[in-house]
Parts: sequence; structure tokens; C-alpha cells
Amino acid sequence: MGKENFVKEITNIEENFTQWYTDVVLKAELADYAETKGCIAIRPYGYAIWENIQNYTDKKFKEVGIQNFSMPSLIPESLLNKEKDHVEGFAPEVAWVTIGGEEELEEKLCIRPTSETIISTMYSKWINSWRDLPVLGNQWCNVLRWEKETRPFLRSREFLWQEGHTVHETSKEAEERTLMMLEIYSDVIENLLAIPVLKGRKTEKEKFAGAAQTYTVECLMHDGRALQAGTSHYFGQNFSKPFNIKFQNREGKDEFGYTTSWGITTRLIGAIIMAHGDNRGLKLPPKVAPIQVVIVPIAQHKDGVLDTCLELKNNLSKSFKIKLDDRDNYSPGFKFNDWEMRGVPVRIEIGPRDIENGECILVRRDTLEKETVALENLEKRLKELLEDIQNNMFNECLERRKAKTSVAYSLDEILQNLETNQGYVKTMWCGNMACEDKIKEVTGAHSRCIPFEQEHLADVCPICGKKADKMVVWGRQY
Amino acid sequence: MGKENFVKEITNIEENFTQWYTDVVLKAELADYAETKGCIAIRPYGYAIWENIQNYTDKKFKEVGIQNFSMPSLIPESLLNKEKDHVEGFAPEVAWVTIGGEEELEEKLCIRPTSETIISTMYSKWINSWRDLPVLGNQWCNVLRWEKETRPFLRSREFLWQEGHTVHETSKEAEERTLMMLEIYSDVIENLLAIPVLKGRKTEKEKFAGAAQTYTVECLMHDGRALQAGTSHYFGQNFSKPFNIKFQNREGKDEFGYTTSWGITTRLIGAIIMAHGDNRGLKLPPKVAPIQVVIVPIAQHKDGVLDTCLELKNNLSKSFKIKLDDRDNYSPGFKFNDWEMRGVPVRIEIGPRDIENGECILVRRDTLEKETVALENLEKRLKELLEDIQNNMFNECLERRKAKTSVAYSLDEILQNLETNQGYVKTMWCGNMACEDKIKEVTGAHSRCIPFEQEHLADVCPICGKKADKMVVWGRQY
Repeated sequence: MGKENFVKEITNIEENFTQWYTDVVLKAELADYAETKGCIAIRPYGYAIWENIQNYTDKKFKEVGIQNFSMPSLIPESLLNKEKDHVEGFAPEVAWVTIGGEEELEEKLCIRPTSETIISTMYSKWINSWRDLPVLGNQWCNVLRWEKETRPFLRSREFLWQEGHTVHETSKEAEERTLMMLEIYSDVIENLLAIPVLKGRKTEKEKFAGAAQTYTVECLMHDGRALQAGTSHYFGQNFSKPFNIKFQNREGKDEFGYTTSWGITTRLIGAIIMAHGDNRGLKLPPKVAPIQVVIVPIAQHKDGVLDTCLELKNNLSKSFKIKLDDRDNYSPGFKFNDWEMRGVPVRIEIGPRDIENGECILVRRDTLEKETVALENLEKRLKELLEDIQNNMFNECLERRKAKTSVAYSLDEILQNLETNQGYVKTMWCGNMACEDKIKEVTGAHSRCIPFEQEHLADVCPICGKKADKMVVWGRQY
Repeated sequence: MGKENFVKEITNIEENFTQWYTDVVLKAELADYAETKGCIAIRPYGYAIWENIQNYTDKKFKEVGIQNFSMPSLIPESLLNKEKDHVEGFAPEVAWVTIGGEEELEEKLCIRPTSETIISTMYSKWINSWRDLPVLGNQWCNVLRWEKETRPFLRSREFLWQEGHTVHETSKEAEERTLMMLEIYSDVIENLLAIPVLKGRKTEKEKFAGAAQTYTVECLMHDGRALQAGTSHYFGQNFSKPFNIKFQNREGKDEFGYTTSWGITTRLIGAIIMAHGDNRGLKLPPKVAPIQVVIVPIAQHKDGVLDTCLELKNNLSKSFKIKLDDRDNYSPGFKFNDWEMRGVPVRIEIGPRDIENGECILVRRDTLEKETVALENLEKRLKELLEDIQNNMFNECLERRKAKTSVAYSLDEILQNLETNQGYVKTMWCGNMACEDKIKEVTGAHSRCIPFEQEHLADVCPICGKKADKMVVWGRQY
């Protein structure tokens, strides 16, 4: 099976990005559609990416004092109803359990779409004094949101995530925590997933149901559409009041706590696919790749080839996540394509002649460049190469983002920029939701955020012409 | 607050074991009752125990080729109905989702009580040839079973577990895998949790709904009741046939795969509590303890005490999970009791005079023995001590099990032994379910298992008097 044939199995990324995405998800065996409508099965190769994200993130969480727990997945209707904005935001998209143990339930239970309500209820039991604060909790779990249109990883009725929930003595401390956790997300996405993020605050229109402020990290995909990759919410006392999270403060008086929540989800796997992939398929940043190096033997039936490969594998497995593909029913050419499609960062090719010469060939997935390396230098060279690939993949995304970021001074210009290039469009904004609505209505772009790094592009809002002192970034989204 | 007052807060273990258990769960902050009926919130201290169990177990799984994945938590009714015994076993205790996104569902969905059905459906899509086998999958997730009577960790409507599901070419390989995974459970429970296990095969009556064979690891609790701590099931082709898990075998013919499943749950936290606890509360084996060593400063307001404690903590934290309790609103006496109640294996007491003498006091939680140790030998001594505690706790359980294991030759004797001592009662058994039913009806004991290590106690069944060649262990259970 030749290379050309194989690659043709994936839709061309420039012709039909949506179909390309689905092809990669299925053919790289990251996930598959399940019998349960709108839900996916995350396959071992996809789940291993999630495990790597979890391990990296959880370590960062623990370094800043976060403790994991596990809360019930079912929330009584009366609890969900306690915070008005929250229930309005989530009630339309929840799944309800109405029967348990063959009996109709007295009160129906929703499967958590997010757990502010149930967690706040527990926190109100556990917190008495300022000495109990801060409470810094988190859970890694599944949640359900009854989406009408679904896409693997990006928008699935069920997905995996972590949801952190904290309570603090002061608004200042809570706001600092909100930003601290956003910083961790930024670290995860930039340093592990090699995708540059745009950091900022969501507008009133785009913030989380029930939040006082929502902060976000935004990523730009291959096709120039934006993806909200992680959010961190400051609630003020919006939840502590209805849920009665009270503490005795240092002056001996009762006070409501200041709370936050923040989450990242398995949609990050979608972000990796769409930020880095190409016409050969998936392209994984080395730090998050379940397999960093694959060894493909050439003429593996010949004496000594598999033995050498096995020895290489054993030596290198201390330093790298390494796989030997010794399948005897596929040609090396098929294997090259197969592992390229699965996004493995580096491939080692080694056959009888290479062994004779004490060398092997390295092929990097990001640039497809080949090099010959002496076996004695292999470990050192692999280390350099993986680091270089990680950096190069980040830089490629950064370059694309630069190329796809534009400035606009009128509604027409916003639309025109998006039609040409998708991407991020920067404008000034007066702060009025009507102007935001207008932009969304005409261009289909949502405000991504009010970036922390502000620029002064003009004095007035491109919609209403009134005074504008905020710069907003707009973009069509996943 | 004196020691006596404090300890009295926990019900006496010999007077009311059930209440003692609940007291420990709540007061050691392992879990709390949630607003959702029959469900618990696992608090950070309890969840950290589960994380330690997960880490240990998951590493063992990966060593034998197991790969994690994530399957949907909702199972369409038609799938659950495909395997007759399975649906009969589980349908009465599932929770049904009937409404999603504000609309009545066409087909109701149950929240997984276990995932054989949905996983088998995916496997049937993924498996084509013997080359795809074995498939060795696992997921760490939540499941729901609508229990009528619930107890934290032991029997909760929602619990956390891992469920492994494998498919093999031959029945032999599948049976070997079933036993291999049971061996890992035995390792986890004996070496990590310090609880000896009884290994064996479940009787027809007690096996998993849909299984050909169920193997079990059984533990004995403080009060002499048994706890099923982990099970591993061999399904033969019971699931592969209705779910069409077919593969082309080495002869090119279609054949149904041979499948297994196996699981351990958060009930293991209940096992730790009930196997090791005493009148001071929880007693954690060092290897699974979230905090292995706690430093309690004496006269912490005095110059240099907290500095020394902090230095100790920093030095020791490379080798141990260590906590410094520097709370300034509790006396050392209160702290001693508090950490004993939370089961921390070793306490370090250190005050101004100890610092002057270059020493500290170590108190071990299992025996409450005290010793004075020079600070220069502290790390070495702590290592020895933790190892000794781990072994001693295992041996104490083993001794209790020996003391509470008896032999019986008649129904009366089984009943009498259980009334006196609870514990395990060994008898011969003819293999007839009617005799098993009789024993259960009269004594309230279930057959724990047909142990792998068989003994010949008599020639006949104590119930029917017919020829008996199997030894069974009986016990009342949690």
C-alpha cells in the first residue's frame, strides 16, 4: 500500500476542514461514535493524551494547594434552581433522571452540567470560620450537556473535565485565585500542547451563567476559527449568598465567602488536532504525545534487525515514550504513513545496512525532515529533536496567529477580514452589549475576550461611534 | 480540650461498630452525606486515599498491558437488554434518564451500573482479526446502582471504580487474564492496604450477572464480617455472542471472542477503615496514607520551635508525605488526638527541650508506642518505622482472621460459630444450590467463595449429607 493511497484516505485539510477533522479523530483512533446519541467513546490513544494533560495539570494544581475530591454526579432540581442566572443558563441543556430503582422519583435529578450548586451546598456545611479558608477543591470527572449539534471532543453531550471550586475570605484573594488558575491553563496549553493563548476577560454577554467575571484562554485553529480552551470564573458572592456559604471573619462577624470556579476539558484534544494537524493527519507535540518515538524496522525478517530494534527500544525507553512497530503484515511504507497519521513526533528507520554502519535514520513529523544519526549519539539527538519539535510547533502556531490577526475600524471591515482570513479581528469597543450583538449578528463572530494586553487602536467604537476605551478581539468559533 | 473528651466523640468500636464506622467516616473527614439521597461527597482526605489506590493499581495494570479509555456513562435501554442474565441482575437497580434538553427521550438511557454492554458494542466495531487481540481496556469512572439501604463507601448509590474489559482469542487466555487481574487486586489489598485476602471462586449463586465464572478477593473486617473487596469475571462467549464481538481467527474463520471484566471500587476505603480502625479512629497503612508523618510542635510560640519544625518538614518531605500542624488555636494534646483519629501512621513531637537535646519523640499510631530519636537518625528511623507499621498492621489482620476462622460440620455449628465470633466458617459443600440457600436462610451468611486453597474437612455436605468434594467459606457480609 503506497504512501499516496494511504494519505488519500484523509480528506484534504484545505478543502474540507470539518471532514478532515472527523477523519483524523476516527482514523488515528482517538475516539469513535458511541451507541449513545451525541456521545463518544474516547479510545486508548486519545485517552492517553488526556492522561498526559491530567498528570501535568494536576501536578500544577497540587503545587498551588488544590485538593481533589469527588462530588455526586446527580443534582436535585431544587439545588439547581437556587441561583437564578445559573439555572437559566444550564437548565435547557441538562439530562434528567426521573426513575431510580424502578420507581418514579419524587424530585427529579439532573446529571451535572457543572457542579457549582452541589459543591456550594457541601461547602456551606464544611466552612465555619476564616480559619477554614481558603477551601481549594477540584474534581476530575464527566459532565453532561444536552447539545443539539455535537462533534467529537469539541462539543459532545458528555465530556471529561476538571472543575475547580474555591472559597476565600476576601474578594481580592478570590480574584487573585481566578487569575492564578488561568495562568496554569495558559502554562498547560502553551508549554504542554504547544498552542499560544490569548488571555483576557469575557464580556458580559459571553461570561459564564452566574459569574461576576469570566476569564478565558483562547486558541486559534488551523482554519482561523477560535476555540475557547479554558475558563476561570470569579463569582463574588453570587453563589455564597443563595447557598449560604458563610464564615465567621477575623472580627467575629458572619460574612459570605467569595468563590471561584475554573475548568478545562477533553475539548483540548480537539484543540491539539485542529491547531497542529496537516494533510498527513495528527501532529502531536512531543510533551503530550503518548508515543514520542516509533521504531520502524526495515527488512525485519533479516537476521539481527528485530534484535537490534528491541535493544534500541529497551535502552531508549528510560528516556522516551517509545514503541517498536514489529507487525509482520505491513510494509515499512505503510507503517511510515500510519504513524505519521497518528502524529508520532519522531520515527526511527533502521535496516540491515544501517545496523552495519552503526546508524539509523530519524524523521521528524513536524517538518518531515530526515537525518542520519550514529547509534551512539541517538539518545542525545532524540532529546534535542523532541525539544526542537515542541518549540517549532509552538512557533508555527504563533506565526499563523500573527498572520491571521487583523485590525478593523468598521463593521464592514470586521466582516471583510473574517471572510478573507477568519482569524482574530481586533477593534475598539464602547462596552455596550448592543454593539456586540450587532457584530455577532452581521459577522457571526463572538467576542473572544477583552485581552489583558490592551492596545489603543482608535478613540471610538466601530459600531456606534461613541467613545471606546477597550480593545476587544473577535472571532468565529468552535 | 482533653484527650478523654475528644476520644469520647467517637462511638466505642465494640459497643456499636456501625455507628463507630459512621463517626470515623464523618469525623476523619473522609466523606460526608450529600444532598442527593444515597450519595456521598468524598472529601479531599478520603479522595487522596483513593488517588493512592489508583496510582498503585494503574501502574500495575499498565505493566500487564492494560490501556485506559473512556466510554459514555449513559446506556440505551436496548443495549442493556441484550444479555438476559445481565439485564435481570442490573435492571432493578438502575437510574433512568428520560428527559434531555427539555424533551422526552425516544429511548430511555440508564446511567451505567457497569459497562459490559456499551463496551461490548464498541469492541464489536473495533475488532476484526486475531491480530487485533487481545484487547485490554479499562476505565476509572463513576457508576450508579440504586441501592435501597446505603452506607458511605460500602454501599452508595454512586461510587467510583475501575472496570477492566478484555477480549481474547481463546478461552484459556481469557481465563488466565481473569486470574492475572485477581492477582493484582490481591497485591493491592495485601501490600498497599495491609489487609490479607481470601482468594477463590464464587458459587453459581453469588457470581456476577452474566458471568461464566466470578473470582473474588475477600477481606475480614474488625467485627468479623466479610467484605467482597474485588472481583474478576470470566464471561466465555456470553457477551461476545449477543454483542457480536467476532474476529477472524488464525484459520481464517469467524469466531466469537472470549471476554473478561474486573473491578475494584471506593468500597476499599471502607475496607481500610473497618479492617484497621480502633477506638481512637482511623488507622492508615503507611503506603496508602495521604499523610505518613505529622509534626506537632510543642510550645510553638517559643523561639526557634516552628523554625526547627519547618526545617524538619522540608528535609523529610523528599522521603515522606509529611505535614506540619502549626495551627495556633489548638493545644498539642488536641492535635495528638486529631491526627490519631485521622489515622496518620507516625507523629513527631518536638519542643524547646527536644531541640536543645537534638532529638524528638516519635509515636506510632498502630501500637501507640513512643520513642526518643536523635534528629540525625530521624530519617532512617522513620523509614524503618513506617515499614514496620505496614507489616504489623497486616499481621494484626492476619491474626484476627486466624482467630475468627472456624470449621463446621453441621448447620447448627455454622450458626453457632457465626453467633459467637462472626468470621469465616469453613465447611464442605456438595455443590447444590439448595444447600447453599439453606445455609443463607438459617445463618444469614453468604458463601464467600470456594477458596483456591482447598482443604478436605469431611466427606459429606453438612446440609444434605451427600458426597461433598468442595470446601466453601461462609460469612456474613457488608
